[in-house]
Amino acid sequence: MKLATLKQGGRDGTLVVVSRDLTRCRAVPAIARTLQAALDNWSDCETQLHQVYEALNSGAVDSQPFDESACHSPLPRAYQWADGSAYLNHVELVRKARNSEVPESFYTDPLMYQGGSDSFIGPRDKVVADESWGIDFEAEVTVVTGDVPMGATPEQAAKAIRLVMLVNDVSLRGLIPNELAKGFGFFQSKPASAFSPVAVTPDELGDAWRDAKVHLPLVVHLNDRLFGKPNAGVDATFNFGQLVAHVAKTRELEAGSIIGSGTVSNKAGDLWGSSIEHGGVGYCCLAEVRTWETIEQGKPATPFMRDGDTVRIEMFDADGRSIFGRIENTVAALAG
Amino acid sequence: MKLATLKQGGRDGTLVVVSRDLTRCRAVPAIARTLQAALDNWSDCETQLHQVYEALNSGAVDSQPFDESACHSPLPRAYQWADGSAYLNHVELVRKARNSEVPESFYTDPLMYQGGSDSFIGPRDKVVADESWGIDFEAEVTVVTGDVPMGATPEQAAKAIRLVMLVNDVSLRGLIPNELAKGFGFFQSKPASAFSPVAVTPDELGDAWRDAKVHLPLVVHLNDRLFGKPNAGVDATFNFGQLVAHVAKTRELEAGSIIGSGTVSNKAGDLWGSSIEHGGVGYCCLAEVRTWETIEQGKPATPFMRDGDTVRIEMFDADGRSIFGRIENTVAALAG
Repeated sequence: MKLATLKQGGRDGTLVVVSRDLTRCRAVPAIARTLQAALDNWSDCETQLHQVYEALNSGAVDSQPFDESACHSPLPRAYQWADGSAYLNHVELVRKARNSEVPESFYTDPLMYQGGSDSFIGPRDKVVADESWGIDFEAEVTVVTGDVPMGATPEQAAKAIRLVMLVNDVSLRGLIPNELAKGFGFFQSKPASAFSPVAVTPDELGDAWRDAKVHLPLVVHLNDRLFGKPNAGVDATFNFGQLVAHVAKTRELEAGSIIGSGTVSNKAGDLWGSSIEHGGVGYCCLAEVRTWETIEQGKPATPFMRDGDTVRIEMFDADGRSIFGRIENTVAALAG
Repeated sequence: MKLATLKQGGRDGTLVVVSRDLTRCRAVPAIARTLQAALDNWSDCETQLHQVYEALNSGAVDSQPFDESACHSPLPRAYQWADGSAYLNHVELVRKARNSEVPESFYTDPLMYQGGSDSFIGPRDKVVADESWGIDFEAEVTVVTGDVPMGATPEQAAKAIRLVMLVNDVSLRGLIPNELAKGFGFFQSKPASAFSPVAVTPDELGDAWRDAKVHLPLVVHLNDRLFGKPNAGVDATFNFGQLVAHVAKTRELEAGSIIGSGTVSNKAGDLWGSSIEHGGVGYCCLAEVRTWETIEQGKPATPFMRDGDTVRIEMFDADGRSIFGRIENTVAALAG
């Protein structure tokens, strides 16, 4: 089934069930007013929500038009947002540009950071930031979990996955070097993320959901130009079961935790990926193409996002229909 | 006023107003069922909650006995927990032990990490962990904010502070070196934290709250032995206004964000602090005494926490009365 959150009814918005084709929706206050409330009581809510979903798809229930631009992120605020780096090609590429090796352990021990989750932006909201901060997008796949006990195995963790979403994990590249040099990881360099208008249950992905990965291209446009379409099921060193289990090693996860894949990135031959113009699958962030430019040409040529630039992130099923709706964030630069 | 959350009524518990002397309390469902709900609508709730508080203190309203052991952390789960390192002595001491300098920027640019906030433990709950992970406590002061706009100044940020709490920021020292070497900061090395039974408004601290710092000793006992009593108002390079403003540089903070001071640590002469036995104010974590031992004796002598070890963290007013109630966490070691 498909779920979304409208920007009305308070800080957590209003939960709606969305039809498979993303044209109709229906609020379900008798079941759960918010997505977090549904996740808190998933065993009670799941069947009822699914019944509404089936009725919506068959037109057997009253509904309203679904407007993606009226949506907040499915969880406008969450109790956890932790982001992995499952696509090692991204890490290899970035390190190659600065002539450093990827440690062997990175292939068995996921790299992950704790993100801020108190105040996400919506899928069509503006990214407000200073251009001098080096504004970049990162297109990723994420999951939302139920409760996960401490010490859960990857198999147990995979079974606790409730929903799948896309994310634009906005990154401020200019702030990253100094911040990482301080030794405590990202902080100011990771401002508010934007999630896809719609969150879907894994079964909604059909055969594309297997081995706890999404085997579909993640399609990224920058200012209406195709920028990337790497397959999220390819070159993922870790699946979502492994990523969630990594989080659960020393603590419980509470329902509604969002765990990300890291920037999707496919290795093409020896090129660490290749741009659309060069016949490759392209990229899911500007940093990768800039890194490739640095390796090949000595310095980056593609600029970071500027005022008015727009990134679109979407994923389509085998019939070309949008699964999650479209993330579309335009930069609104702060006055310098 | 003083607020607490009882472990009943769901994942977020039940908000109670607590009398100043911590003996009586009263649920306030007509005002707010949970502390997060009160923070979400603080301008509507504050006056009403304060009226209940005054009535409780004067005995003018029905109440029930307040039992600290029935409490969860005031926010059993939060949308944000970000922890600073305001006490540079802690950083200087740790670096001294490994012969590295503290970068100059650390004195002007706060070091801060994003912590997990989806599932805190309660103030009297067990710390469940593997002894081989190097179980340590960190006694700190924290604040809970209202909404803070992006780009807020330290002065604006200080005005958005709603509540003050203590925390045991449990740390797994054995996991830290490998995790920090990966470059993305703490993750598995920071399991669930425990907060004081009671959260208090800054005015409750009287003269001890000034310059957005708490000027009182933070009293730590390890297995009934006094282990530390450094003053949280001394040697704090950053106050809470500066720490909150650091968080707000590139994003908004939503109401209910918890921001921590880092381990409280006083510099005594040239000794980077000194133990209670040596006539000093002692320490707020085991790592500091182990570091001091490493500097002075070549290797640490004090072990990390073992199964059954208990840490108590508390703060007292000028008359010796507990302000926040007592954090008391005992280690329940996982079978090795």
